[in-house]
Amino acid sequence: MASEFDTGLPSIRQVQTLIRDQNTVELKLLTGDVFSGTVVWQDAHAICLSVDGATVLTMRSAVAYIKAN
Amino acid sequence: MASEFDTGLPSIRQVQTLIRDQNTVELKLLTGDVFSGTVVWQDAHAICLSVDGATVLTMRSAVAYIKAN
Amino acid sequence: MASEFDTGLPSIRQVQTLIRDQNTVELKLLTGDVFSGTVVWQDAHAICLSVDGATVLTMRSAVAYIKAN
Amino acid sequence: MASEFDTGLPSIRQVQTLIRDQNTVELKLLTGDVFSGTVVWQDAHAICLSVDGATVLTMRSAVAYIKAN
Amino acid sequence: MASEFDTGLPSIRQVQTLIRDQNTVELKLLTGDVFSGTVVWQDAHAICLSVDGATVLTMRSAVAYIKAN
Amino acid sequence: MASEFDTGLPSIRQVQTLIRDQNTVELKLLTGDVFSGTVVWQDAHAICLSVDGATVLTMRSAVAYIKAN
Repeated sequence: MASEFDTGLPSIRQVQTLIRDQNTVELKLLTGDVFSGTVVWQDAHAICLSVDGATVLTMRSAVAYIKAN
Repeated sequence: MASEFDTGLPSIRQVQTLIRDQNTVELKLLTGDVFSGTVVWQDAHAICLSVDGATVLTMRSAVAYIKAN
Repeated sequence: MASEFDTGLPSIRQVQTLIRDQNTVELKLLTGDVFSGTVVWQDAHAICLSVDGATVLTMRSAVAYIKAN
Repeated sequence: MASEFDTGLPSIRQVQTLIRDQNTVELKLLTGDVFSGTVVWQDAHAICLSVDGATVLTMRSAVAYIKAN
Repeated sequence: MASEFDTGLPSIRQVQTLIRDQNTVELKLLTGDVFSGTVVWQDAHAICLSVDGATVLTMRSAVAYIKAN
Repeated sequence: MASEFDTGLPSIRQVQTLIRDQNTVELKLLTGDVFSGTVVWQDAHAICLSVDGATVLTMRSAVAYIKAN
């Protein structure tokens, strides 16, 4: 579980922007689950969402895509 | 199986909080299995749950999300 | 999340060409989702698509194939 | 295929205990296969089970969970 | 995305032979997609196929098997 | 694609024995495909099978289990 987290990467910056602007996003997991909510924070292993008031810790390795609505 | 486990990461700390507070969590695996139980401990490779009195060792690589109920 | 991104690799260069020429591509994810759109940018963790005007951040680990139409 | 195998990790120790005590375990793979048997040994890449007298080498990367019955 | 690509490995050499001899191969992805075509090139992240005249960039992490017809 | 291949590991040695003894094995992939054949060779990235006279290069990352018949 190497934890280097290169905040200079475009993909990390894009999610940072989604966090800053509190956009509603559609995040799909490899399980087929689709969450619609806002990104609370991100780190090397996970992307934390707020979905209908609940906190959902999605594992990066299980994320298929993130779409800004 | 590098075993660095950065306890400073928000995602690790969040699970630590779930362990401390013994929240009931919903943990979904890439198989589609959904476990409802409490987190006993976590390490670089696994998240150990107590589910209806049974110990379930879930592999981090197979975890899709963790939702605090 | 090591972020070495070897732009000399043929696979990275091929996607760079798709970006430069703004080809329409078919990108399939492990979820079975198939996106038809153009590649906006790529980095070590993700491939960013423009699909019908929406920005879709696909995780590299979830990409199955990319086909130039 | 880095082969560091940190026997100090709780998850490795827990499986070691299952081996020592020859508990019957339920091991589920990402394919949906569920094996009921005993753990013979483990290493950085695999968990070896004895299932109805047959030896089954399960790849760690494909294991979803292990449940002690 | 470490990019060491050990051309001495049997598996890399075998695909090199398939490229040199332009064998028709059957390549199956984790999505269940099966491509029948020839291998154009390979690198640390991808295997590039020519399938019915189209270029298909398959991600190594999504390849299940390659079978020489 | 780090290529360290620790031939001292029990799991590597076990497959080496299957190769030496030319046991018929059942190898299941994450796609659900089950191959019955003999192991020809293995390396850090792949396990090469002979199945009904055909050579099948299975990617280690896609292997779920190997069972000696």
